[in-house]
Amino acid sequence: MSEIKKIAVMTGGGDCPGLNAVIRAVTKTATMKYGLEVVGIKHGYRGLYLGGSEFVNLTYDNVKNIISKGGTILFSSNKDNLFDYTYEDENGNICHGDVSDVGIKNLKDNNIDALIVIGGDGTLTSGRDFSRKGVKVIGVPKTIDNDLAATETTFGFDTAVANAVDAIDKLKTTAESHSRIIVVEAMGRYAGFLALAMGIGGAADAILIPEIEYDINKVAECLKNNIKRGKEHAIVVVAEGAKPKGGEIFVSKVVEDSPDPIRLGGIAKVVADQLEKLVGLEARATILGHVQRGGSPTANDRILSTRYGAYAVELLMQGKFGNMVTLDGNSMSYESLENVIGQNKAVDPEGELVKIAEATGVSFGR
Amino acid sequence: MSEIKKIAVMTGGGDCPGLNAVIRAVTKTATMKYGLEVVGIKHGYRGLYLGGSEFVNLTYDNVKNIISKGGTILFSSNKDNLFDYTYEDENGNICHGDVSDVGIKNLKDNNIDALIVIGGDGTLTSGRDFSRKGVKVIGVPKTIDNDLAATETTFGFDTAVANAVDAIDKLKTTAESHSRIIVVEAMGRYAGFLALAMGIGGAADAILIPEIEYDINKVAECLKNNIKRGKEHAIVVVAEGAKPKGGEIFVSKVVEDSPDPIRLGGIAKVVADQLEKLVGLEARATILGHVQRGGSPTANDRILSTRYGAYAVELLMQGKFGNMVTLDGNSMSYESLENVIGQNKAVDPEGELVKIAEATGVSFGR
Amino acid sequence: MSEIKKIAVMTGGGDCPGLNAVIRAVTKTATMKYGLEVVGIKHGYRGLYLGGSEFVNLTYDNVKNIISKGGTILFSSNKDNLFDYTYEDENGNICHGDVSDVGIKNLKDNNIDALIVIGGDGTLTSGRDFSRKGVKVIGVPKTIDNDLAATETTFGFDTAVANAVDAIDKLKTTAESHSRIIVVEAMGRYAGFLALAMGIGGAADAILIPEIEYDINKVAECLKNNIKRGKEHAIVVVAEGAKPKGGEIFVSKVVEDSPDPIRLGGIAKVVADQLEKLVGLEARATILGHVQRGGSPTANDRILSTRYGAYAVELLMQGKFGNMVTLDGNSMSYESLENVIGQNKAVDPEGELVKIAEATGVSFGR
Amino acid sequence: MSEIKKIAVMTGGGDCPGLNAVIRAVTKTATMKYGLEVVGIKHGYRGLYLGGSEFVNLTYDNVKNIISKGGTILFSSNKDNLFDYTYEDENGNICHGDVSDVGIKNLKDNNIDALIVIGGDGTLTSGRDFSRKGVKVIGVPKTIDNDLAATETTFGFDTAVANAVDAIDKLKTTAESHSRIIVVEAMGRYAGFLALAMGIGGAADAILIPEIEYDINKVAECLKNNIKRGKEHAIVVVAEGAKPKGGEIFVSKVVEDSPDPIRLGGIAKVVADQLEKLVGLEARATILGHVQRGGSPTANDRILSTRYGAYAVELLMQGKFGNMVTLDGNSMSYESLENVIGQNKAVDPEGELVKIAEATGVSFGR
Repeated sequence: MSEIKKIAVMTGGGDCPGLNAVIRAVTKTATMKYGLEVVGIKHGYRGLYLGGSEFVNLTYDNVKNIISKGGTILFSSNKDNLFDYTYEDENGNICHGDVSDVGIKNLKDNNIDALIVIGGDGTLTSGRDFSRKGVKVIGVPKTIDNDLAATETTFGFDTAVANAVDAIDKLKTTAESHSRIIVVEAMGRYAGFLALAMGIGGAADAILIPEIEYDINKVAECLKNNIKRGKEHAIVVVAEGAKPKGGEIFVSKVVEDSPDPIRLGGIAKVVADQLEKLVGLEARATILGHVQRGGSPTANDRILSTRYGAYAVELLMQGKFGNMVTLDGNSMSYESLENVIGQNKAVDPEGELVKIAEATGVSFGR
Repeated sequence: MSEIKKIAVMTGGGDCPGLNAVIRAVTKTATMKYGLEVVGIKHGYRGLYLGGSEFVNLTYDNVKNIISKGGTILFSSNKDNLFDYTYEDENGNICHGDVSDVGIKNLKDNNIDALIVIGGDGTLTSGRDFSRKGVKVIGVPKTIDNDLAATETTFGFDTAVANAVDAIDKLKTTAESHSRIIVVEAMGRYAGFLALAMGIGGAADAILIPEIEYDINKVAECLKNNIKRGKEHAIVVVAEGAKPKGGEIFVSKVVEDSPDPIRLGGIAKVVADQLEKLVGLEARATILGHVQRGGSPTANDRILSTRYGAYAVELLMQGKFGNMVTLDGNSMSYESLENVIGQNKAVDPEGELVKIAEATGVSFGR
Repeated sequence: MSEIKKIAVMTGGGDCPGLNAVIRAVTKTATMKYGLEVVGIKHGYRGLYLGGSEFVNLTYDNVKNIISKGGTILFSSNKDNLFDYTYEDENGNICHGDVSDVGIKNLKDNNIDALIVIGGDGTLTSGRDFSRKGVKVIGVPKTIDNDLAATETTFGFDTAVANAVDAIDKLKTTAESHSRIIVVEAMGRYAGFLALAMGIGGAADAILIPEIEYDINKVAECLKNNIKRGKEHAIVVVAEGAKPKGGEIFVSKVVEDSPDPIRLGGIAKVVADQLEKLVGLEARATILGHVQRGGSPTANDRILSTRYGAYAVELLMQGKFGNMVTLDGNSMSYESLENVIGQNKAVDPEGELVKIAEATGVSFGR
Repeated sequence: MSEIKKIAVMTGGGDCPGLNAVIRAVTKTATMKYGLEVVGIKHGYRGLYLGGSEFVNLTYDNVKNIISKGGTILFSSNKDNLFDYTYEDENGNICHGDVSDVGIKNLKDNNIDALIVIGGDGTLTSGRDFSRKGVKVIGVPKTIDNDLAATETTFGFDTAVANAVDAIDKLKTTAESHSRIIVVEAMGRYAGFLALAMGIGGAADAILIPEIEYDINKVAECLKNNIKRGKEHAIVVVAEGAKPKGGEIFVSKVVEDSPDPIRLGGIAKVVADQLEKLVGLEARATILGHVQRGGSPTANDRILSTRYGAYAVELLMQGKFGNMVTLDGNSMSYESLENVIGQNKAVDPEGELVKIAEATGVSFGR
């Protein structure tokens, strides 16, 4: 029998539409259905380490208006790993090491019986490590790229696609009025799910993704054929990590030195310049950037987030610690945190979605 | 081996976001991948009967900008059943009978080898009947209520939910500022999928659906508890066909005489009046009406529609006539038109989505 | 020289997009520019009467995220007039009378030197009356109908027009797909500004407003001419208070007994029924209702609200008490509360906007 | 008395939301009110030079669904000046010179009596020059920057502000969740109207515009004060042409060589890097780019465009050739094309809008 009376919830890594809806569902399910107390830990693992005012009570009142709010009311922090942490000690010296026991002590001092961690690979890895040390942990996956193997879909993806398609709709009016090619760079260094979805939804003429090496001449040929059919403009969607056939991975390489797409111009600029020459229409590059992951979650993501959050509490109450909530087909399920870390999925180059895109005339440059 | 060279496509029944995206995918796949000719039949079966200028060629150019457009460029008509048709003959007399052979002749006269019909139960029933008479038919299901048993999800539903949640977000500011209960009436005479999804996504306090008889006192109790928790306003979503426990089905009855919700006030008004008395807050009713099914399809629906449309052509080319395209899990599949007519599904009162809604504090009045 | 150190702000009457942006601008200008303290009075004049916990401090932190939020964080109440108030005394008896001195005492007890009241005619009338009794009052006008004579435009109007046009865009896809007339009922019992703006912005075929008596036959004739030009659908916008020529004022009369448009069907239903018969297309009525005034204010309204709020504080600091902030041309100005009450404006039937609408083919039924 | 029977309309320069609404109003007013014929000239002055299939008839049917469509159905071209034109002659030689007479001949050959040109400074300059040569010309101003001295506001500006504020709303969730400064670069090389409006509407902490030289230390100081007040994130809006005090004009200089903001990083990147160091929060730069000027026009811009278009035809019919339509206060008016070219306006550094922004805590870096 579960003796859980008080639980904590935290968010780690980059923000993602739906985080607040998860926090809300966790809080409501825990307090209203099970009569638990809920603590929100601010700033992810940093807050777990710091304790004190980083631990805040979450009640019905705190979460009553947040389902539609982007971001996370608990704030987030990147790359804070308590098992390998850099901090200042009481003498002001910079120290480095495993401070996970401080986190565990903070949980105990606050009488917290279990912990729900919402985050990506890094956040969940630490979740697994805390679980190994005996903390009752449930993970909730978060990846805007939707590339987590263990689960069908993650919240935030639908909103990112919607935001991107909305932007493409706007860009199309310019492309059409000026007979231009507009190359839109999408998030996705390793997986093309987002580029693929926004390309199909945005009626792109070509979609370049990491999973399918592209030949720029094939892309150009497709656009030229469309011009013959009377369409004197084009939208091309390029994932950050798209790779030219035989060539080196443009963006990944540059990203090492300098992670800021604005500084670099990114692959979108390269593709635009090439297409301008090959196709003979003016071409422009656009990088959607953070706009893509911001704003109010779609209805779809609000529902999915609510399911993830509520189910995380159910797992806790069933004593299924050390697991991550997953979406299996269209049902909530779970998988051991031991098995999910680093298990990514990629777009299947011969899968139905790519095939259907090609059937409707989309070029992948192959 | 398929000898299909020219196909026709038509839309029947109420409009639904995504119809144009299906038409586009059919046209693009047929012309670009298979080199077929495509004819659009205007005004559904009425156009099939009338022939002539109701048959229009569909090319790349006709469909190049329609993925984001609501409604149907082929127009639609309701309740035109050529197997039981009312028409005027050449002498101006009103006649009644089976004119399906006229439709078949029009297809032959236009050298149309196969027909894709996009529509709901009525449209698909006729599709089945034409199939029985030897026409090569593929059906594409359309139901904004998402209550078709043979398929996981239909296009248009996601947009309807999104539109409704957007409206609820707007209504909530009024509810909150004036400490009011706002009762929102959703489409759904027989199934509560839409009300359930928009209720969860819109963070409703209560959701009343046809599948779960409600006790208005239970709903009121829930709202009063929320007031104690500090939430002095409420959103209640009511499906048109929601039924009070032991009582008669309010709307369905009235609907017989007069299908116009505006004239009736609808069940939303009844529920609002009851809750105002029981809860002690001002209550208002709102009927979303056609706004719910209008407008540009969501990115999600554009993708789903594209899959339905492209796959319909694939089925045709594979010679799998007499079938309807379905979504099975997350893959496109098909099912015989003989098996799908009248096979509706309903919300499972003990299913995961209802349970999760209840876990997060939503009352279904039970 | 002004000796104002602490001010209060309150909102009265129906909610309106931009109220929070006004509250924010008042608070920021008062605290950041002038170092004042700001008190928010909840629930309008009722809160002024009740005092105590209805008075809350407003700081930078309270208002930092509210510019985009619809409604009012201070809540509102309708029809609470302290000069003619119904209340329960300490013995539980229902009493009735002038309790304005209680309000004044509450201001004094809280050391509040001046009061900014944001509201419509009723709210401003009380504001004037408090001003007559020596309270330092500044009024900020609020009317979603934009019918206040003293000021060019009021906040909320732009958002209401935007919401309505967005709804019309959605309704148009249904109208077009089904060759229907859709009659959209807009707020506006006495003035047609909203109907006129949403009609022009929504490309309506006809606009019926209180200021121009309409002949339904003229409207029908216009729609029939458009059908001849190839447009087999129509959007007709009707203000609640539109009047048939020679006939009685349909809605106004009914409204006496029963103010709820949903129950009545409203004038939209009447017009739809008439047009269906006269024009020969199916017609449907839609009442936009509260969706129209809800949601996040447009960028335009956020700016206008910020100007109203900031300027209200400037007037206070300049000692110009007893005035209402106005927009004069494109500049902020003010006018005595003594002169503005009950001074409404109406659409000029021969004004530029009506003339331009007519030039572009819109029928006003005359 | 006017003998105008047939008019032409064309669009030049960058696309702008509302162009189609102007074309629609021109066409409807000309055909429905005055019974004129209307010709649309495609691709601006290039189409005027080419004639033939570049001249298309515009009827009720062509414009019936375009009010909500971004871009221009007549397409546009940049920098085509027939008075100084580069073209290929019949022998394939590249020639250069004044070909305005070819344009005039094309008008005559098509029996076009008058020409409405919609565009920015370049387009209107040619309009003036054609007017000087006797062509009956009316100009309609188009500038997304709203910096035309002769008119109060131009269409497209409201939509650009709305799109930008929508983007800022999205970016804010990331800024807040990660305690970041986000620097948003707005269009506006010479005028800060857009940056100012989107900054106020988006609740920016600082707004840097060409008209007010900024001291980055002052901006940093403002953000640090806000952090003390509890706001650990910031939005800073920077116009492309913003100038550091005493420093050189960063962007304008770079723009000479290479007009693409994505390649450059732009001033937003410079400001973000500086603020990150000075304030001690992570800072990111975002360039809104073409998304800002794309998409469906706001209701407001649709109305304004309709007024511009309808009034242009009125001027023609009144014989007031050689003039440009203007908005004077809130009324349509006109001004000679001889007087408006190159007459730009700038944000008044001591004007009401800047003052109100400062009153509500916005820093302009001064």
